[in-house]
Amino acid sequence: MLKLIIFLMCFGVIFANNFWIVKPGPKYPPTKGEVWPKPQYQTKEKTFYIFNPLQFKIMSTYQTCDILTNAVERYFYILTSQIGGRIRKRKERAHRRHVSQGLNKGYINNLEIALMEPCEDYPHLNMDESYNLTVSATSTLSSPSIWGVIRGLETFSQLFYLSDDRNEIRINSTQIYDFPRYKHRGLLLDTSRHFISVTNILKTLDAMAMNKMNVFHWHIVDDQSFPYKSEKFPELSNVGAYDLSMVYTKEDIKKIIEFATNRGIRVIPEFDVPGHTASWGSSHPDLLTECYEGNKVVGLGPMNPTKNRTYILLRELFQEIQTWFPDRYFHIGGDEVGLDCWRSNPEIKEYMKNNTLTVAGLHALFMRRVIPLLTNNSKLIVWQEVFDEGVKLANDTLIQVWKYNWITEMINILIAGREVIFSSTWYLSEMSSEWPDFYLPDPRKMVYGITLNKNLLPGIVGGEACMWGEMVDDRNVINRVWPRASAVAERLWSTLDDKMNFKLEIPTETYSRIEEQTCRMIRRGVDAQPPSGPGFCNV
Amino acid sequence: MLKLIIFLMCFGVIFANNFWIVKPGPKYPPTKGEVWPKPQYQTKEKTFYIFNPLQFKIMSTYQTCDILTNAVERYFYILTSQIGGRIRKRKERAHRRHVSQGLNKGYINNLEIALMEPCEDYPHLNMDESYNLTVSATSTLSSPSIWGVIRGLETFSQLFYLSDDRNEIRINSTQIYDFPRYKHRGLLLDTSRHFISVTNILKTLDAMAMNKMNVFHWHIVDDQSFPYKSEKFPELSNVGAYDLSMVYTKEDIKKIIEFATNRGIRVIPEFDVPGHTASWGSSHPDLLTECYEGNKVVGLGPMNPTKNRTYILLRELFQEIQTWFPDRYFHIGGDEVGLDCWRSNPEIKEYMKNNTLTVAGLHALFMRRVIPLLTNNSKLIVWQEVFDEGVKLANDTLIQVWKYNWITEMINILIAGREVIFSSTWYLSEMSSEWPDFYLPDPRKMVYGITLNKNLLPGIVGGEACMWGEMVDDRNVINRVWPRASAVAERLWSTLDDKMNFKLEIPTETYSRIEEQTCRMIRRGVDAQPPSGPGFCNV
Repeated sequence: MLKLIIFLMCFGVIFANNFWIVKPGPKYPPTKGEVWPKPQYQTKEKTFYIFNPLQFKIMSTYQTCDILTNAVERYFYILTSQIGGRIRKRKERAHRRHVSQGLNKGYINNLEIALMEPCEDYPHLNMDESYNLTVSATSTLSSPSIWGVIRGLETFSQLFYLSDDRNEIRINSTQIYDFPRYKHRGLLLDTSRHFISVTNILKTLDAMAMNKMNVFHWHIVDDQSFPYKSEKFPELSNVGAYDLSMVYTKEDIKKIIEFATNRGIRVIPEFDVPGHTASWGSSHPDLLTECYEGNKVVGLGPMNPTKNRTYILLRELFQEIQTWFPDRYFHIGGDEVGLDCWRSNPEIKEYMKNNTLTVAGLHALFMRRVIPLLTNNSKLIVWQEVFDEGVKLANDTLIQVWKYNWITEMINILIAGREVIFSSTWYLSEMSSEWPDFYLPDPRKMVYGITLNKNLLPGIVGGEACMWGEMVDDRNVINRVWPRASAVAERLWSTLDDKMNFKLEIPTETYSRIEEQTCRMIRRGVDAQPPSGPGFCNV
Repeated sequence: MLKLIIFLMCFGVIFANNFWIVKPGPKYPPTKGEVWPKPQYQTKEKTFYIFNPLQFKIMSTYQTCDILTNAVERYFYILTSQIGGRIRKRKERAHRRHVSQGLNKGYINNLEIALMEPCEDYPHLNMDESYNLTVSATSTLSSPSIWGVIRGLETFSQLFYLSDDRNEIRINSTQIYDFPRYKHRGLLLDTSRHFISVTNILKTLDAMAMNKMNVFHWHIVDDQSFPYKSEKFPELSNVGAYDLSMVYTKEDIKKIIEFATNRGIRVIPEFDVPGHTASWGSSHPDLLTECYEGNKVVGLGPMNPTKNRTYILLRELFQEIQTWFPDRYFHIGGDEVGLDCWRSNPEIKEYMKNNTLTVAGLHALFMRRVIPLLTNNSKLIVWQEVFDEGVKLANDTLIQVWKYNWITEMINILIAGREVIFSSTWYLSEMSSEWPDFYLPDPRKMVYGITLNKNLLPGIVGGEACMWGEMVDDRNVINRVWPRASAVAERLWSTLDDKMNFKLEIPTETYSRIEEQTCRMIRRGVDAQPPSGPGFCNV
């Protein structure tokens, strides 16, 4: 049946009352000047202003700082070159008609930015991203925080649209008050299964900013390759990277963090331990556990938790990483540890016996010894297994839920007083899922549906779309992430329409709005894929 | 369960005996100098020759022609610049080791091409694609046909590989006798749901040649848009294309056909009638049937088979198309006709009553009237519905099977003495299918499995991989087609390993070989996606 539906879809049949009626043109024509993710409060009038790239100015009053100057320059360029560049050439529009004279309120001249408080240097979990925006001849954008200003500039740029006759760029009289529903809105990118170039990481950050996402979770190393080029342990990537050219240097990382900071995006590195570490073993096999079958060593498994050398290397390495990555949060993984390998190893068996430990207890012991290796006032993110196996964790540790028991898992974590990042239904690596599959689930709504307990909900601080790297490389990663991650971005930012639940359909307006968002990303250099069917971007 | 497997896969666990053991590096390391699709007969020795781009020559003896000259130039460029360019710079390889001296048979100097018969101008259904290739210091490639020479040149270029130390390009002593299993090996590209640029069509043709596919089935127009820019009826695309820039002109078509011809690829246009024609109605609504609900017109459906004007326009248009497309075959579609719309229209009801016709009979009548509109000695391809609805078809009409009843459908067509093109399991638009899903099914094997009748099998002349355009546009089409279409290409060219059936696994060698083919396509400018998991192309 599913296959039949896919086939019918493939042949472009539209399921109307009379399904034999088809119509020419795009399935969902893009909206014009609608914002993605949808702002919390927005009123929009029919009257509009005309945009003239030559006379438009952005001015900032009150506070300023490098991040603000950089953002103003960036959006001035987007507005004047990329958006302004879309109008027809002067010659073509000689016979311009003024059909909507009554709604036309003249030119938009300025955007005045009022940043009310001094800039912060780096974005953080509790940053303020709220802003107020009023569009008129002299428009104003105000926020207590540089991060709010950046979000507001993005919104402002998205309100412009090309008139139907393609003769002018317009922006409607609009009032917006906006802020995010969740404070942690992330994208995980895996650069170990396939190497992703710095260029495409920067492009990804740019697209994240267009979708108001604020955490780049960099799953930098894993079993397959170790592209982090350490200064203290160069052998890790010399031997463990796919190729000497497929590495991230200190300078690359600095560039990525600076680019992200300018867009209000945090960069959180993940160095997953003690599992997912085969590539560490390429240069340091003695870090890993020898797995046995009977009396025979049959391969290498997770890190060996009984050896001091493991912790010595981790301490040195983590210290280096933490001087390169300014975010206070550090993701130490902890998922899918090959406990059976530990179980098979005679030395470890002996160790467990002597210390009356189970393998889960051994995992807990490992984590307990690793956590203090991080610098003071570090905060942790871990995969759910670390919670499940009873490791004692600091109160501010975030638990990332990714498995299929997500609702009970979230409830357990919340009842234990911990905070949750949700990812289970947001695996972009599930290639057959399209954006509507990612759009519907909301972690707070799911937990509330079961518990009817509103007090638990603030403990869900956000979520992350995860693009594991098995089936994406530098050539298709942008296409496979966007616009599917945009669905997660809107779910995490915007108020949830109570009428929309798992059984109901997503409104047609949303289909049309993600078409516009896709065309917008393409126009700004992000090669997003078609979201929902036949169509085109007339740029 | 499936989801669990996907999750486990996403975290890179390798299902070995001890599934907790993981290893660094690519999942399937690419082969070195193995050919895709696999040749029919091949012997390869361990001895090898060294390739020096500066001293290598391709010479053709016996016959020559423009197509041959063009092919020789093309492959000379591929060998000397693209393959030859991969060796390390001279300085880097100063300390070259000669470890495998005993196997090294010196330089390969020449490839001598012996084309035994005069060139044909265009490829055709029954062209000879067989060739003999012997690799030694002076290698020889012989074929009775220009098309065989082109296939042999592709094979020859694929035999080269980079030595492990990256110091030299090698080719092993090899003997190959090769020919295709099926004579029609096609790729359908839909340029109506999204417009595909001429650049990407040419790139697609180049990739087809790398995979020895020989039919470009151009599903050029459909409901959504009409990008064929007719000279006789310019309004069809002026109104029916997505945009005035999103059209194929006569010159574009000429360029595409010339490019294809030089690669031994036929270009077969499809103008699907009477269904899938909404975009024709943008300029010619009177071609289409008004669909009724009660007494009310609710939209436009398929072409109106009762009006003479329909046939007059089709005759004129088809004549133009046939002067632009030299292939004798013309695809007139005939799938998914909205028979219910015909049923709802009072005039058509009256017509059916007066002529004692069912709606299927009306479809048959339409097809019967359309077929003679094509130029003399045209041959037809139709979708399976046209056969199913009992239209009288010429003996040489090819029936394209695409629905889910494929085995019985093929048997019915073959028993009726008709020939089949198979597509049902090869819908590339099923985004969740990966190359192994396309690799396993073989239409002859399926029919033989049911009928045990070998006489029916030659009636299956080939197959086509179909990339419907709903979810692909100019940005992701190359990535989504390749290397998934390579699986279909090998199935259609190579002998089927009898040991491999639906229940058995594809050999690891094939996984590694498609990795090499993917890297090869990438090196030659085709941005193919990763076929089967973690890895990299070290080019």
